[in-house]
Amino acid sequence: MDIVSTLGLTNFVMQFSRISMYPFFDMAHYTLSIMKLKEQPGAVDVAHRSPIACWFSGMLCCFGGAILASVLLGEPPIEPFTNNRNIILASVIWYLIFYCPYDKFYKCCNFLPSKLFIAGMKEVTRARKIVGGVMDAHSRYRNGWLAVIAVGWAKGAGSGLIANFEQLVRGVWIPERNELLKMSYGTKVTLIGAVLFTFQQMNYLPITRHNLIFLYTMFVVSTEGKNWRHSALLPLVQLLKKVKISKGGGQRRLSKILTKNRRIHKVIFLLDFCSIESLWMRFEIEKPFCSTNNSKSIVIYKIKCT
Amino acid sequence: MDIVSTLGLTNFVMQFSRISMYPFFDMAHYTLSIMKLKEQPGAVDVAHRSPIACWFSGMLCCFGGAILASVLLGEPPIEPFTNNRNIILASVIWYLIFYCPYDKFYKCCNFLPSKLFIAGMKEVTRARKIVGGVMDAHSRYRNGWLAVIAVGWAKGAGSGLIANFEQLVRGVWIPERNELLKMSYGTKVTLIGAVLFTFQQMNYLPITRHNLIFLYTMFVVSTEGKNWRHSALLPLVQLLKKVKISKGGGQRRLSKILTKNRRIHKVIFLLDFCSIESLWMRFEIEKPFCSTNNSKSIVIYKIKCT
Amino acid sequence: MDIVSTLGLTNFVMQFSRISMYPFFDMAHYTLSIMKLKEQPGAVDVAHRSPIACWFSGMLCCFGGAILASVLLGEPPIEPFTNNRNIILASVIWYLIFYCPYDKFYKCCNFLPSKLFIAGMKEVTRARKIVGGVMDAHSRYRNGWLAVIAVGWAKGAGSGLIANFEQLVRGVWIPERNELLKMSYGTKVTLIGAVLFTFQQMNYLPITRHNLIFLYTMFVVSTEGKNWRHSALLPLVQLLKKVKISKGGGQRRLSKILTKNRRIHKVIFLLDFCSIESLWMRFEIEKPFCSTNNSKSIVIYKIKCT
Repeated sequence: MDIVSTLGLTNFVMQFSRISMYPFFDMAHYTLSIMKLKEQPGAVDVAHRSPIACWFSGMLCCFGGAILASVLLGEPPIEPFTNNRNIILASVIWYLIFYCPYDKFYKCCNFLPSKLFIAGMKEVTRARKIVGGVMDAHSRYRNGWLAVIAVGWAKGAGSGLIANFEQLVRGVWIPERNELLKMSYGTKVTLIGAVLFTFQQMNYLPITRHNLIFLYTMFVVSTEGKNWRHSALLPLVQLLKKVKISKGGGQRRLSKILTKNRRIHKVIFLLDFCSIESLWMRFEIEKPFCSTNNSKSIVIYKIKCT
Repeated sequence: MDIVSTLGLTNFVMQFSRISMYPFFDMAHYTLSIMKLKEQPGAVDVAHRSPIACWFSGMLCCFGGAILASVLLGEPPIEPFTNNRNIILASVIWYLIFYCPYDKFYKCCNFLPSKLFIAGMKEVTRARKIVGGVMDAHSRYRNGWLAVIAVGWAKGAGSGLIANFEQLVRGVWIPERNELLKMSYGTKVTLIGAVLFTFQQMNYLPITRHNLIFLYTMFVVSTEGKNWRHSALLPLVQLLKKVKISKGGGQRRLSKILTKNRRIHKVIFLLDFCSIESLWMRFEIEKPFCSTNNSKSIVIYKIKCT
Repeated sequence: MDIVSTLGLTNFVMQFSRISMYPFFDMAHYTLSIMKLKEQPGAVDVAHRSPIACWFSGMLCCFGGAILASVLLGEPPIEPFTNNRNIILASVIWYLIFYCPYDKFYKCCNFLPSKLFIAGMKEVTRARKIVGGVMDAHSRYRNGWLAVIAVGWAKGAGSGLIANFEQLVRGVWIPERNELLKMSYGTKVTLIGAVLFTFQQMNYLPITRHNLIFLYTMFVVSTEGKNWRHSALLPLVQLLKKVKISKGGGQRRLSKILTKNRRIHKVIFLLDFCSIESLWMRFEIEKPFCSTNNSKSIVIYKIKCT
């Protein structure tokens, strides 16, 4: 790739592709995965009722990719659990996030700047995992490019793809929702990455692996800007979080808040712009809203859609 | 087997058992599997919302047997996906069936004579798959006849056996229905085939493999006559399809149609005779019907039962 | 371990650890597993509707541990089915328990003294299975103690851990209940055993394997006294079993019985003391009880809790 060499980044890129994931990047990955788990409805309750189920669920979130890739390649799915170092690290983080007094650790990590930093670091691990999966599968199936893509994808986005079974461990079962039916941003970007790295591995792309890792990582980290957009809405989200919707009463309250807000059109635009899935899940709204005022009903309809 | 040699079919049978499945017979199998998928309630909707989930679901229908057999034998379940040739063929057929303009391809294949022809061809692949599974398992487990039968069965009827998980990909979850609880005709006949081929492989049956493949295939293709019986009822089925049953109102309409029909006893007989499961599923009737007139209630009860 | 040698039990312990499980201890394990299956709501119905689903469900109960351990170690999950001897033994017991005329076999085994004897014998197999799993995993993963514990646990308590999927075979799906969320006594004791045997295998415990097997088995068999406690309550359980709770009417009847009972505080204590989960499941009470009298509501609340 000429861009990299013309920018004089060749050495940097080489070093970047050799940087060890172990203590810090892996830590960021575990932290974010387990924070996401904690935000699931009912997860904290499970943590108190059955720590073992919660721990296993957390490990599935952290090592889901490795486990799924092992299953696909017919290797022991228990293999990720033989890596004591990483398991202990993930377990410590799991413990801190769920049981730290006053929830300090979670709050620190959830503080916006630190969360964005962690999210950026986590994305660095994604490219590595995809490459690991692609190379592993390619060494077995020279020409099975579809299998190679699948394994790369599974390794990079496995925890999302096995989410149904991870939820089952916690006693939750939502069959109508899965990552194949409605892909999250991470799953999509991992699929693109798996395709790119597979083509690179099969020499269809005129770029070295180091450069592709670097460029892909840069792309993914920068598009994490989704989070930035989300974070710009954080005050609104905080506002909405306070609304307890129950028995139809909340409906009026939500619309009241939206009416009070002078910049309602901006809100519509912003809600449309950002992905508010996490917000949505927290409300657990089941019936579609419909308020009498048409302009408001548009807003609410948009919340429902995303 | 004397029948074959006395009929002078020895050469034909040898050639038959060596005929390549690849382009045409496999094509028939993929076409029928994906047509069956398309007829599932909600499948077309999934095809438009999430092509990837639909494609994966289609591949599970086409290669379910190979995947399940791989899992049972501890081989990589991704292996069927390394056969690019077959995957591409299946994907092209999946694309044509779901997205062909004006639904032409599906309609052509669903036209009764062509559907019966395809169904016959598909059944030819069944024997081959069972034999493949049986030989594969027998080469590993010399004396484990149960495991050999299981792998042969899984390879021949795998897509049915994993139907619960195939549905899960599409966001559908029907735990109370599975192929073990209520076997379809295909699953039953495959089980019989797996037992026969296992006994042949272990030299308990005085027949060569070629002859057994030929005779079993003939048997299965001819008993596909179930479809013939079904097809004789097609006009009635078309009539019933027009009935939209909703909120109890349809009940009256259905009975009206059945009352108008002078040959009502024949209808009862025919409904009893043919398997109208697919029809049943399309209606998605949940409550049992009961009309005031007793003779009609019998009809409706019979619909419910099958 | 000094206790064993000072008691002069060294020879006995050696012989004990070499005793063959095959005909009798395995038989006890299969009998108890399939009896437990038969007591599940709906299992008898499945046995009559679909013997194959019931048989497969029974085999999952008997060989669940071996199957789960095989899956975890990346070995063919069909391997337990290649052991014809054990499969035939388990199938015969399955047949007798489900289809014996007048239910004689089940009633004999369910007779309290014989059930306790069988339960004791079954527990002897537990230690062996854990050791088998631990040694198998340890030979592959020298340092992966977590994986070794997991495989030992899976092999010893597998049928419980895969209960969700065993239920799925019978068309039952209860995602909110699993062995990780709420461990049964057997699962807990197996986990402790897996930890102990792993540490012994890694030479962290100053005890030989034979002695540990002996002591662990003694411990498990004696703590099966839970069953004894349960059995002491059998008359009460029989009494409660007669109560048919339906449409709120049973509520009054249950409280009437409890009121009639003079030793009501003793009942409260006993209900609290014994695990009456099986009783609970048999009632299939869904709504929480609340009677007007506070003292009774405590009783009922306690029933609900356990």
